[in-house]
Amino acid sequence: MAKVVLCYSGGLDTTVCIPILREKYGFDEVVTVTVDIGQPEDEIRYAERRGEKYADKHYTIDAKKEFVNAIFMLIKANGDYEGYVLGTALARPIIAEKVVEIAKKENADAIAHGATGKGNDQLRFDNIFFQHGFRVIAPMRELNLTREWEMEYAEKHGIEIPVTKDKPWSIDENLWSRSIEGGKLEDPSYIPPEEIYEWTLSAEKTPNEPEIIEIGFEKGIPISINGEKMDGVSLIRYLNEIGGKHGVGRTDMIEDRILGLKARENYEHPAATILITAHRDLEKLVLSRRELKFKKIVEEEWAELVYYGLVNEPLFEALNAFIDKTQERVTGWVRVKIYKGSCIPLARSSDFALYKEELTSFDSLELDQRFSEGYSRFHGLQGRIYNEIKKDLKTI
Amino acid sequence: MAKVVLCYSGGLDTTVCIPILREKYGFDEVVTVTVDIGQPEDEIRYAERRGEKYADKHYTIDAKKEFVNAIFMLIKANGDYEGYVLGTALARPIIAEKVVEIAKKENADAIAHGATGKGNDQLRFDNIFFQHGFRVIAPMRELNLTREWEMEYAEKHGIEIPVTKDKPWSIDENLWSRSIEGGKLEDPSYIPPEEIYEWTLSAEKTPNEPEIIEIGFEKGIPISINGEKMDGVSLIRYLNEIGGKHGVGRTDMIEDRILGLKARENYEHPAATILITAHRDLEKLVLSRRELKFKKIVEEEWAELVYYGLVNEPLFEALNAFIDKTQERVTGWVRVKIYKGSCIPLARSSDFALYKEELTSFDSLELDQRFSEGYSRFHGLQGRIYNEIKKDLKTI
Amino acid sequence: MAKVVLCYSGGLDTTVCIPILREKYGFDEVVTVTVDIGQPEDEIRYAERRGEKYADKHYTIDAKKEFVNAIFMLIKANGDYEGYVLGTALARPIIAEKVVEIAKKENADAIAHGATGKGNDQLRFDNIFFQHGFRVIAPMRELNLTREWEMEYAEKHGIEIPVTKDKPWSIDENLWSRSIEGGKLEDPSYIPPEEIYEWTLSAEKTPNEPEIIEIGFEKGIPISINGEKMDGVSLIRYLNEIGGKHGVGRTDMIEDRILGLKARENYEHPAATILITAHRDLEKLVLSRRELKFKKIVEEEWAELVYYGLVNEPLFEALNAFIDKTQERVTGWVRVKIYKGSCIPLARSSDFALYKEELTSFDSLELDQRFSEGYSRFHGLQGRIYNEIKKDLKTI
Amino acid sequence: MAKVVLCYSGGLDTTVCIPILREKYGFDEVVTVTVDIGQPEDEIRYAERRGEKYADKHYTIDAKKEFVNAIFMLIKANGDYEGYVLGTALARPIIAEKVVEIAKKENADAIAHGATGKGNDQLRFDNIFFQHGFRVIAPMRELNLTREWEMEYAEKHGIEIPVTKDKPWSIDENLWSRSIEGGKLEDPSYIPPEEIYEWTLSAEKTPNEPEIIEIGFEKGIPISINGEKMDGVSLIRYLNEIGGKHGVGRTDMIEDRILGLKARENYEHPAATILITAHRDLEKLVLSRRELKFKKIVEEEWAELVYYGLVNEPLFEALNAFIDKTQERVTGWVRVKIYKGSCIPLARSSDFALYKEELTSFDSLELDQRFSEGYSRFHGLQGRIYNEIKKDLKTI
Repeated sequence: MAKVVLCYSGGLDTTVCIPILREKYGFDEVVTVTVDIGQPEDEIRYAERRGEKYADKHYTIDAKKEFVNAIFMLIKANGDYEGYVLGTALARPIIAEKVVEIAKKENADAIAHGATGKGNDQLRFDNIFFQHGFRVIAPMRELNLTREWEMEYAEKHGIEIPVTKDKPWSIDENLWSRSIEGGKLEDPSYIPPEEIYEWTLSAEKTPNEPEIIEIGFEKGIPISINGEKMDGVSLIRYLNEIGGKHGVGRTDMIEDRILGLKARENYEHPAATILITAHRDLEKLVLSRRELKFKKIVEEEWAELVYYGLVNEPLFEALNAFIDKTQERVTGWVRVKIYKGSCIPLARSSDFALYKEELTSFDSLELDQRFSEGYSRFHGLQGRIYNEIKKDLKTI
Repeated sequence: MAKVVLCYSGGLDTTVCIPILREKYGFDEVVTVTVDIGQPEDEIRYAERRGEKYADKHYTIDAKKEFVNAIFMLIKANGDYEGYVLGTALARPIIAEKVVEIAKKENADAIAHGATGKGNDQLRFDNIFFQHGFRVIAPMRELNLTREWEMEYAEKHGIEIPVTKDKPWSIDENLWSRSIEGGKLEDPSYIPPEEIYEWTLSAEKTPNEPEIIEIGFEKGIPISINGEKMDGVSLIRYLNEIGGKHGVGRTDMIEDRILGLKARENYEHPAATILITAHRDLEKLVLSRRELKFKKIVEEEWAELVYYGLVNEPLFEALNAFIDKTQERVTGWVRVKIYKGSCIPLARSSDFALYKEELTSFDSLELDQRFSEGYSRFHGLQGRIYNEIKKDLKTI
Repeated sequence: MAKVVLCYSGGLDTTVCIPILREKYGFDEVVTVTVDIGQPEDEIRYAERRGEKYADKHYTIDAKKEFVNAIFMLIKANGDYEGYVLGTALARPIIAEKVVEIAKKENADAIAHGATGKGNDQLRFDNIFFQHGFRVIAPMRELNLTREWEMEYAEKHGIEIPVTKDKPWSIDENLWSRSIEGGKLEDPSYIPPEEIYEWTLSAEKTPNEPEIIEIGFEKGIPISINGEKMDGVSLIRYLNEIGGKHGVGRTDMIEDRILGLKARENYEHPAATILITAHRDLEKLVLSRRELKFKKIVEEEWAELVYYGLVNEPLFEALNAFIDKTQERVTGWVRVKIYKGSCIPLARSSDFALYKEELTSFDSLELDQRFSEGYSRFHGLQGRIYNEIKKDLKTI
Repeated sequence: MAKVVLCYSGGLDTTVCIPILREKYGFDEVVTVTVDIGQPEDEIRYAERRGEKYADKHYTIDAKKEFVNAIFMLIKANGDYEGYVLGTALARPIIAEKVVEIAKKENADAIAHGATGKGNDQLRFDNIFFQHGFRVIAPMRELNLTREWEMEYAEKHGIEIPVTKDKPWSIDENLWSRSIEGGKLEDPSYIPPEEIYEWTLSAEKTPNEPEIIEIGFEKGIPISINGEKMDGVSLIRYLNEIGGKHGVGRTDMIEDRILGLKARENYEHPAATILITAHRDLEKLVLSRRELKFKKIVEEEWAELVYYGLVNEPLFEALNAFIDKTQERVTGWVRVKIYKGSCIPLARSSDFALYKEELTSFDSLELDQRFSEGYSRFHGLQGRIYNEIKKDLKTI
């Protein structure tokens, strides 16, 4: 009795995998698992109905809490891979871990996923499945299926074909971001049509009054909006809504995939834009110059690990330890103005501000302007010696 | 016959320095120098009239060309110090070098400047003046003068006091940016009033139609707008105007000054925002992932050197060599949409794109999806071994 | 009743400071403090006798334990500033904190130290003293005293002049390293005479038999020699002795001081060389490639902070958090061979080794050689696309 | 008429590839190419004889000059991957490019190499062969051959089996380094026997008199020994000989291979140790602190690219541009003492030294000790503010 657990979204690809796993791979039992990381409710219900109908057994697992915790770490790290807010990348290992839990519980012989051999997700999924010692089956990657073949095969197996408007792009959506790629968008010089966006209004259609929002942070984590405490899921959903209404949080970019291919990607992420803008602003008030400069290098590495799906790499834990230490003081509030697609910090405050007004205005006795001359004598000293030598030798 | 050359802006501070240099420092001759780095024309003329009137001799030097060259390097480096576009920082050493030229020509015994002991400019000026072996005099830093004393002293010496509207903040302006600091703005939680801005309209007052602009780049340098070739000064002035009209290019931030004090700064810089947004976008199409990742570290260091006024540090030349090498291929165009304060890239193209549509869509024979599985087996291998050990030992 | 606490070594400089603090600075009471950070016992006793004789009150404080803890952190960080093992740099803030404790206990009005204005120690001391709000007095820096003046002044005040062999260099010594600088050594092209070394024999005079030593580590900290557990002070002293006997641990280098001056420095540090060689070797067995690569960047920054005396900078805590996380698994042993000045790792073992013999020899079923081809197809992909474009366009 | 060019060493593996390429892959013509990158002369002659005997055509190509140029760049970069001097890694792409030249000249249909699927060389070779659009054949990787099978197959095809002493390790040797791996050495805790070393004497057997060698550098490149100009090949060979005689240049380490496996490696490289020790020492005299610190980050990345065989990655060119810029002043000499396995710098000199004796001893008028106090007031300022806040709030 061979059993396989299938990472299941309810779409055509993963649904045709069910009979494929039986027919082409010889499994006796196919168990589908849909993991809720904040995608639209009706998508989850749809997957649930279809899993229950076509597979031998179906699980729907709520991982929103785990995902929000990961997002909180991402905010502390100002998570940004070449400009991308890392929504899908961050979710994959969480989904994979949940699927592994079911596979263990079900004593499954293998885990299957519907990712192709072109993208990043196969690598993010495989990494976690391999780690737990599972055989991995990726029919899309292994069989090179076309959409036409899939539709025919679905019909043959009595699988209802999703009546989606025929969208020429591929979408992935969770609590943190919505990505749109493929089709004509693959041409970097093609200006994307408005219809690809669902979370954000075009700036032309947004309200004519700006909104000022105050985000409260505690140890780097957003905890309140306009003074009102909110749990993570609600806070992010609220900002996605209000930010989207003001056209905030669109990215159109060229991105380097893990395998080394460049791809044009479009993203929507109102909450991510607002929260990271605010978080960065608060950090500038609280962290020392040396912390800010070095943390950027840490952030660059952190984002790469997340994008690559390498959250089980030991370096990831060490980077998190660094980041967490810096965030102990990132407590305070930031006011941002969102309007017609832009999000600008206007004011901020923290008990931990390294800012001292009396020092900046130099009125204190502690620092006398004359000390600056002493400082100035040494500032740039080596550069001056260098130029003197250069002048003398005239040979460099 | 002791002679001093004074770095001259025409304002109250540097004008009272003229009699001070005679009376308190005993110079027989004071030569004023005003350097044109793109500040408003009438400011330069005003400085010129007053220099000619109050000093023994006056020079007005045009350094716009040198400044534009420095700005071009800054664009290649995506110049950004903690969010600041580095306008004033970049201009100071250029001004200083021009003043040194005059000081040498005039056989001056010393160079004077009007910077205080609180800020960055004293260090940027001193560094260049010291390098050329000049004695540096900084009356504001050395004598701790108050505005009241200065006004009285000016009156006593027949110096006309500039009838500026009594602005409670201090302004610095050149081709690349306009900075506003001081007064109430020093409180990070104070929301700045609209009146501090002169280059940019408030997004609420900008046109209701967005503008799409195409920037052409050659080797990292912007050379055309909407297909029309433009010289650097004109191109930057044009983008400042049109960007400002659409409310693009405002920064409100906490900044770490060289001496280690944090300060709240406000900036305007429409052209800088548009050009760097476009430049970064084009780089993502053309540079390899490894170049993009490492160049960020180089940029961080580059920006620090410029902010610190250390452009004569040998590291600066080496960073520039790195950057120039990467820019050889940054040729192409980017279309950005500016609207109501936001600036978003929409499309881009380059003959040097590392992007290959046929690879991304994986239709080529060259890359087969099955290869991805081989890749996947090694991707994250060490992280998996680490987790296996961790599980076995249960002690980490 | 003005009281000053003096950071006291017992030498001529700090001893003449006692009457100077009374006569030139007007203090009524001078309290001397000598901090034991592992310098030779007789040096401490000598300072004690003289402090008790010439000052109003004397304290000897044992800080060896605090210093060993700091050294343990340094080992985890492979502490190395341009090749220097950081002994003096690491000790200064610890000494300063102990002096501050006494100053607080004694209700002192100021703290004095004997550092000149040329070196690093003034900055390391001042930083801690300023932090605790003390007025700092540095007579050597402020009064520009010469040795002749000091000797005459000492005689006048009945201070016995130390009968040291007239060494033309200045020495600093503690548990971790011994530094020699000054005099003829200042010339980088001068080959130092053997007599400057006291901890290490010249390789020509060391035993003709090598010694193999096994160092045991637990979480990055050395805990045993040849299987025998030892406390930190004993372990370091033992390795200093045996390493010195074999001529291990000499450094002759040009170093960049904090103020930007380059200086020629000579150091001895047998234990440091042995421990860091062994620690680095063990890390290569246990840490992942990504950890090793990124930790080097962290170490570079860590060493700079220690050298600059900036251990109270918040970045230092964050770097330590990173390092500590990586060290949780650095448990195991390393065998090194020390002989005639060299120290070479020969063998190592750890339960946490990321090394898996069956993977390296590829006999396991888990990894098949054919997977490597898949990997190879993507390895370097962007570089190949780059070269193809380069060839096509012939313009780069 | 299918033709294949085979990268040929003359050993058993690549020799059995000749009939394999005919029989199993169906090639009509096999052309062997041996590239001389400084391996022992008799090895090259041996390969030549066997190539001429068993293949249809043989080429021996001298690439020593190209290899020396690459080594010169490596010296400027202080080339070091986790402690490895990168000899084999640096040679592979040069060999590959030469083989490509022949393959193009011969109009070959494919290129074959004898690397297995376990190591690094397959990836370094493939990368260059793929870049030039060649089909790559790697029989060892594809057919999973055992030594027994190979010997039987050789006999069957009349191939003389090399009568090597049955060495249980695998060797690679060129001008820059000799590597030994495999067999019992795979166990990290196994102390390697003396017999694995051929270039270096055991320190116990070296002369009892040390040798002091002066290396002259010009723009970062070694050009003379003890004042006598030498070409690259001769200079490196001379230092390998004399260094080996004194036991200098052994490495025993755990290394992270490209695929992510850790492996124990042993290396010999006397010239590399001497030259890089001297080069680093000279750099400390000449480069600014900021250059030294940042160059370390550049070197880390440079070494990774070389180890990975990614010298055709555009980042490599940019890193080289950075490095070359810093090396313009690395001209001067260094004296090192080599003795019983150790190599220690004793003295150094350069016209471009950033060292100024008069500054260090602070006797010049230019720098007064009092200025240091001014510097000290700002040094560490943010760390002090941080600690003050920490104390006040008692919550961090």
